[in-house]
Amino acid sequence: AVHSALAEAGLAEAAVAGISSIDRKGDERALQELAQLHHWPFRLHTATALTAVPVPTPSEVVAAEMGTGSVAEAAALLSSGDNGQLKLHKRITHANDDERGAVTVAIAESIEAYSPQQGELHLIGSGPGDLALLTPEARSALERCPAWVGYGLYLDLLEPLRRPDQIRLDGQLTMERDRCQQALSLARQGVRVALVSSGDSGIYGMAGLALELWLDLPEDDRPRFAVHPGISALQLAAAKAGAPLMHDFCTVSLSDRLTPWEVIERRLKGAAKGDFVVALYNPRSKGRDWQLQHAKTILLAERPASTPVVIARQLGRQEEHVSFCRLDSLPVESIDMLTVLVIGNSSSRIDGGRMVTPRGYPGAELS
Amino acid sequence: AVHSALAEAGLAEAAVAGISSIDRKGDERALQELAQLHHWPFRLHTATALTAVPVPTPSEVVAAEMGTGSVAEAAALLSSGDNGQLKLHKRITHANDDERGAVTVAIAESIEAYSPQQGELHLIGSGPGDLALLTPEARSALERCPAWVGYGLYLDLLEPLRRPDQIRLDGQLTMERDRCQQALSLARQGVRVALVSSGDSGIYGMAGLALELWLDLPEDDRPRFAVHPGISALQLAAAKAGAPLMHDFCTVSLSDRLTPWEVIERRLKGAAKGDFVVALYNPRSKGRDWQLQHAKTILLAERPASTPVVIARQLGRQEEHVSFCRLDSLPVESIDMLTVLVIGNSSSRIDGGRMVTPRGYPGAELS
Repeated sequence: AVHSALAEAGLAEAAVAGISSIDRKGDERALQELAQLHHWPFRLHTATALTAVPVPTPSEVVAAEMGTGSVAEAAALLSSGDNGQLKLHKRITHANDDERGAVTVAIAESIEAYSPQQGELHLIGSGPGDLALLTPEARSALERCPAWVGYGLYLDLLEPLRRPDQIRLDGQLTMERDRCQQALSLARQGVRVALVSSGDSGIYGMAGLALELWLDLPEDDRPRFAVHPGISALQLAAAKAGAPLMHDFCTVSLSDRLTPWEVIERRLKGAAKGDFVVALYNPRSKGRDWQLQHAKTILLAERPASTPVVIARQLGRQEEHVSFCRLDSLPVESIDMLTVLVIGNSSSRIDGGRMVTPRGYPGAELS
Repeated sequence: AVHSALAEAGLAEAAVAGISSIDRKGDERALQELAQLHHWPFRLHTATALTAVPVPTPSEVVAAEMGTGSVAEAAALLSSGDNGQLKLHKRITHANDDERGAVTVAIAESIEAYSPQQGELHLIGSGPGDLALLTPEARSALERCPAWVGYGLYLDLLEPLRRPDQIRLDGQLTMERDRCQQALSLARQGVRVALVSSGDSGIYGMAGLALELWLDLPEDDRPRFAVHPGISALQLAAAKAGAPLMHDFCTVSLSDRLTPWEVIERRLKGAAKGDFVVALYNPRSKGRDWQLQHAKTILLAERPASTPVVIARQLGRQEEHVSFCRLDSLPVESIDMLTVLVIGNSSSRIDGGRMVTPRGYPGAELS
């Protein structure tokens, strides 16, 4: 049946990258032997995954029996990856008159190289920039991956670690979704891919978006997914400034590109009322110039004017600069996207060129 | 004058570890030559630092001229370190009749070895336990320090890195102040000391307490102070669970050992109202068994019963275990001190065995 289908589609046997079917057929001797004989990788898909694939000729009979309207065409399409195209609609070959059963074959053409091995998507937190802050764990994940995807500047910082056999795919600054999709698509083709964020990929990095796209995939088509944490800007800012976080703290991103300003304002109010030390990410950019002043006003409503603030710019890079000011004299106009702000709680203070937030509350007995 | 003072105190010249004075005397030729001649380290202190030292015979004349009631005795005591004792009260040797000026000498005995080199206090965040998560930067700070101070369990995890020439000083679990003081005292004697916290020393670690004690020292008696950030438990919990932090988050410690419960409750309410993802540190111990139930109730007042929770235990160790539950069915009784909880915000969800908090808000256009 396979041979006649190939002949009909005008394809050589050598053009077959692999075969696939529904998971219930995984223990079928004939399929296993066929795969073994030709050294064809044999992939299985769940009924749920197959149902999600649009096919030209779904069958109600098959749906009743298998839980999906198509096995052959859907499996062929699913295995052929992104932009796969059906080359041969399903052909049913019935058994001889004295036997039971039938074989259904469909052929799909894969645009991308078909790989039987499971791909991997590694979310790398590369830290603030200085390679001395990259964890050995993230470093070995990078070593493991032949493909690195990320915003150019972050990949530049990792360049000393890249071997000639590892390729880098530079993305544009704000096109996070493109980068995630590119990385995920490669991983689905069996490639081990490192998707790089600065800081911690799980803190305002790409882990969330990548995971959302990963979850959108059929379950059996998901590459391995792993997050490798990194030192976030707020941690290095804190370390350079002294010990400003020490007590309960929160992070708020002032970017309203993806979050309505009302939500951000609600967060700032909760942070102010809770007397949290507040780390402000994405405080201000050329296009977003009024949010920081609003945030300052909201915090000043609940906190003394003298509340100390850490202004940390270009952390972990040569241009690194850390300074302090009072909350009421925060120089809003001079803050940019390369800056992280850490705003003290009601007991934070600046002393000896450092900012400290006492761990115990006034009167608490420290052991 | 020095010779006669030594004779009077019954001390040999070889017993002199160094000389010191007020900073204004730093450019005095006689003192410089004396130090050079005998190879005595010459230390200078500010008037502010000297004023803080209690001395038996302060002088108003000196105070008016120098801004401190004692130079010789205070400088001797200050240089002799912790538990230094005055061996000889000040002796004033006047110049010959045809010369102007006088020399005042006092001698203090140092209990600890006197070292002229500046000590260093390195606050190390050793990460959750796995050495693969220790940053190279923290690792080289450890390499640099002949003395490591920390709670035994954390030092055990670093043991593979310790050279035979590096000593470890194990402290007790809750005696943070003791450990900080021991580390600081060693550093004041010119030793390079690593003070180890698990996770990030700046997040519920020892950086704050150590900095407070450091700030209590006279300015010119402070060793170098540096914080080396590490991966905090919340970051590894997030990485293992998927991408639960992604949006604005906060950390709250439920330990009321140093913080009144009213403050913690205020924080929890702020976190709930602000719809933050909440990481709970120190959620519950044998002695603190009711706080977590209270926290759960406060969060449930503002958040759906189905809010997902990550329960992460023994992170970075062999016994590591990460599981999920709904907020309303959080098994409070089975939570212990080795656990970190991450509670989702109103849009967090569990899917495919992972927890994800969408980065954009519903309806937001992700590029």
